Amino acid sequence: MPYGYRAPVEHMRFVMERVLNAPQSWRGCPGFADLDGQTAEAVLDEAARFAAEVLLPLNTSGDQQGCTRLADGTVRTPDGFRAAYGAYVEGGWAALPCDPAWEGQGLPLLLDAAMREMLDACNHGWNMYPDLLHGAYETLKAHGSEALKQRYLADLATGRTLAAMALTEPGAGSDLGVLRSSAQPQPDGTWRVQGDKVFISGAEHDLTDQIVHLVLARTPDAPAGTRGLSLFLVPKHLPQGARNAWVCTGLEHKMGIHGSATCSIRYEGATGWLIGDLHRGLAAMFLMMNSARLHVGLQGLGHLEMATQNARRHAQDRVQGGGPIAQHPAMRHTLLRLQARTEALRCMAYRAALALDEAAHHESPERRAQQSALAALLTPIVKAYGTQLGFEGAHQALQVFGGYGYVRETGVEQTLRDARIALIYEGTNEIQAIDLVQRKLLSDEGRALGILMAELETEAAAALAAGLPEAAQALREQIAHARRGLADLQAAAAQGRETVLVLCDDALAAYAHLCLAWAWTASSRACMQVLAERPDDDEAAQRLERMRYGLQWLLPQAQVHWQALGVQRVLPAVCA
Amino acid sequence: MPYGYRAPVEHMRFVMERVLNAPQSWRGCPGFADLDGQTAEAVLDEAARFAAEVLLPLNTSGDQQGCTRLADGTVRTPDGFRAAYGAYVEGGWAALPCDPAWEGQGLPLLLDAAMREMLDACNHGWNMYPDLLHGAYETLKAHGSEALKQRYLADLATGRTLAAMALTEPGAGSDLGVLRSSAQPQPDGTWRVQGDKVFISGAEHDLTDQIVHLVLARTPDAPAGTRGLSLFLVPKHLPQGARNAWVCTGLEHKMGIHGSATCSIRYEGATGWLIGDLHRGLAAMFLMMNSARLHVGLQGLGHLEMATQNARRHAQDRVQGGGPIAQHPAMRHTLLRLQARTEALRCMAYRAALALDEAAHHESPERRAQQSALAALLTPIVKAYGTQLGFEGAHQALQVFGGYGYVRETGVEQTLRDARIALIYEGTNEIQAIDLVQRKLLSDEGRALGILMAELETEAAAALAAGLPEAAQALREQIAHARRGLADLQAAAAQGRETVLVLCDDALAAYAHLCLAWAWTASSRACMQVLAERPDDDEAAQRLERMRYGLQWLLPQAQVHWQALGVQRVLPAVCA
Repeated sequence: MPYGYRAPVEHMRFVMERVLNAPQSWRGCPGFADLDGQTAEAVLDEAARFAAEVLLPLNTSGDQQGCTRLADGTVRTPDGFRAAYGAYVEGGWAALPCDPAWEGQGLPLLLDAAMREMLDACNHGWNMYPDLLHGAYETLKAHGSEALKQRYLADLATGRTLAAMALTEPGAGSDLGVLRSSAQPQPDGTWRVQGDKVFISGAEHDLTDQIVHLVLARTPDAPAGTRGLSLFLVPKHLPQGARNAWVCTGLEHKMGIHGSATCSIRYEGATGWLIGDLHRGLAAMFLMMNSARLHVGLQGLGHLEMATQNARRHAQDRVQGGGPIAQHPAMRHTLLRLQARTEALRCMAYRAALALDEAAHHESPERRAQQSALAALLTPIVKAYGTQLGFEGAHQALQVFGGYGYVRETGVEQTLRDARIALIYEGTNEIQAIDLVQRKLLSDEGRALGILMAELETEAAAALAAGLPEAAQALREQIAHARRGLADLQAAAAQGRETVLVLCDDALAAYAHLCLAWAWTASSRACMQVLAERPDDDEAAQRLERMRYGLQWLLPQAQVHWQALGVQRVLPAVCA
Repeated sequence: MPYGYRAPVEHMRFVMERVLNAPQSWRGCPGFADLDGQTAEAVLDEAARFAAEVLLPLNTSGDQQGCTRLADGTVRTPDGFRAAYGAYVEGGWAALPCDPAWEGQGLPLLLDAAMREMLDACNHGWNMYPDLLHGAYETLKAHGSEALKQRYLADLATGRTLAAMALTEPGAGSDLGVLRSSAQPQPDGTWRVQGDKVFISGAEHDLTDQIVHLVLARTPDAPAGTRGLSLFLVPKHLPQGARNAWVCTGLEHKMGIHGSATCSIRYEGATGWLIGDLHRGLAAMFLMMNSARLHVGLQGLGHLEMATQNARRHAQDRVQGGGPIAQHPAMRHTLLRLQARTEALRCMAYRAALALDEAAHHESPERRAQQSALAALLTPIVKAYGTQLGFEGAHQALQVFGGYGYVRETGVEQTLRDARIALIYEGTNEIQAIDLVQRKLLSDEGRALGILMAELETEAAAALAAGLPEAAQALREQIAHARRGLADLQAAAAQGRETVLVLCDDALAAYAHLCLAWAWTASSRACMQVLAERPDDDEAAQRLERMRYGLQWLLPQAQVHWQALGVQRVLPAVCA
């Protein structure tokens, strides 16, 4: 049976309505106060149709054709990609979460997150093109001059123009301080941008005529390091229509996301416009990167969902030893693990999206500040752990397919190859771990964590009240670990930077398990509510069992990570 | 810098001589009594040269060209593969561990294992062709008629003829009981073989003129299930030279090992000869499969070594933030984990090979029986855990390369793709876990485990005597866990088959950690011996630190698996 996709709209709504109680949040946000469940449902159903009917049929062919054909600096995307993108813009999908003032639809990021998850599941390679659009839109909206906004912002909001983020250079990956691209001021107020950038997704393609690059470059006499970087908008076509002076010099042959053009770009004195303040390019760029990081976590979720539902179907169809292999205990472990993780990751990622919505739109300034801190705390966890689960999920699903998973035609090996990049780009998962520990846990002395913990305590109490003492107990144990973990990290930090850096990967895994414990508990509580209303709801009863599986069989993996935080050991050097 | 390979001959010898004390074992084996360290060293050095100079240059090109070209049923392997194979036969590599009576070189499987590890590291796709040869040789040697042996055995021993193992059919993967291929007896004593087989590695190619298939098929009136299967030798060319009646009907497009021909074969009344007894085909085939399982574990080791040494070199060459990334704590964790696991897995895999050597050649019958049981116990662990570490190692190494790991040119993504198959074929890792628990731990009431435990106790005492109280303590803790684990499994088995099947994957991981604890402890003890002789031996001092890293940072991952064995929980069904 071919690789298929049925959007998990039912579970998406369960998470939004039952686990997160998003409608209540919306009522506190003037911009969303009129939003009702029916509208949300219609958006999800339509997005599901677009993903499965327009994008999924291009997933295998996009992988096979790839996007490595460069003729005279022009990139040709796989067959059907351009038409699908036209339909995407036409359908208003790019504009979904954007401001109506800029032709946006003004819907919550929470719905946008669900839509993105579907696009990623069905065609990650294709979705690389529009996925950076929202970050570019936000960056320009927050930092662009009025003139720049008038010229580009509505086109970015609607997707009529696509965007690319040009950071990396041949000698500089995670270390942006050594970037060498330069920008020289011109008498007319523009800048002349020069330099080589690599690994730029979607810098050149044939989906839209106009493409704008957001380019990090160094101005004359700028300070060394990252504090000397400024951000420039460098369009493909200048306002009068002439082609700007940059050229695509190469396309990467990659392990996966073959349909995505990964470009090397040479800026040959291209004309650019400064975005935001001089030397504050990285700060402006971070807005784009934070949005992109949640999106990457959603890629992990999309891959995990895709892998899970196909593994499940294969295991139910494939007969060995007189019954479907889904009956075998080893396969049941794998399928339960896949499902329990998929459902938990959806809760986590959507929780982060909801926090961003409240941070931007809630009527209460305190709530906005609180939710902003919470979103910042959750973002590195969703990015790093979500992408890890996406890759591991594809790996485990491939094992369910056995030999049929290793051949190309079943599609699961493509999911594995596509999923792998997400652990690397937009800040490697190791960088996410450092971000979590240094900036999100230690810098504010645990205030953001305190906000999360208060929410988790409330959930534990709700679980207990719902008749789930074991889930409440498991969550409270994780909360206690998380408190001690913070103290351990603070003690390590007091010993110096090296001592705390040694613990970051364990810390990320540990706090991710705290979130998993919350997700399984909150989902269990929500299942109990459904069952109280409809005692014979099979889906809720089965979900409750899966959530219990997560708490009983998967959560114990947290303990080795919490323990590691409490031991200060010297990490040997790696010798040449 | 391109992907390279420097065979770890120094560590291979360290494991053989210092950790395993193989020379002492050889002195107890009449066939190897004359073998000295110099001969062994010369074999390793020559094999290292062959792998790095002949096979490695064909690894990328073999991946890119692939082996999916089928013209008139003829398979064309990638450029250079045929010449490399000629050099392999010419160099006597196929014959290395075979009986001199059949033109073999009569060397230990331990040296053969080291050679295979190098071939796998440098070109897994190419090595798929000769890798099954030894299993076919052993099967024919043990079960073939004198006439069949005279006709084929020397050619198989030397590799002049290649072999393939034809089990899987479209409807039957792990479940061999439902195989449908048939064999009809002919008046001249031959059999007429009919049926379709899929996923047959190296069933057709252009490396040798003659290819023999070992085919599992059902004879008329045979009992149903696996007890009705018989094994047939079906050559490509009949003794008079005519082409036998089978045809290659298709080649798979796979995720990796592109250079290997994965064939669909249709037997159209092909002439075959019975190997062994009627209806005992599976038993004869198991001999081949056990040999193949150790080989697959060695593939995991080869991939892990390749990934590790390239990640390490990249991390030392790549400068970010003012120094090589190898200095960063997150990268140090990854590199130390890779190295500690590589070195431990080598100890484990070579220990299994040495057990096979003693089982076949030791002068003491008790020792032979003991070591045979030990080899049987270790085989599923080395196969399943070794391939898991190989895949995970490639995954972790890719992360060290960052974006450069995701593009094809650095080579590490090929290692990841190639490594993935090894968790599936020759019995999936889930089947290995069941084999370990049911056949190796429970069936003999822990006798094989007792043999292993006695050896581990001796090692713990030696570590203590060598001044390594912490290592000795860590190993003894694992031994205690392993004892309790056996009791837990026995208690689960008393509850029924389902209860114990639920625990198999955790059991495999847990007992693999027992072996890791042994490997890190024994290696530490061996390092102490080296340091006692040469106090300023830097390599030994650094290795000691890596082994300590394994015991301190990695071994705690065992505990969640041991704990799982002690809790009997109901595993939910996966609902449709």
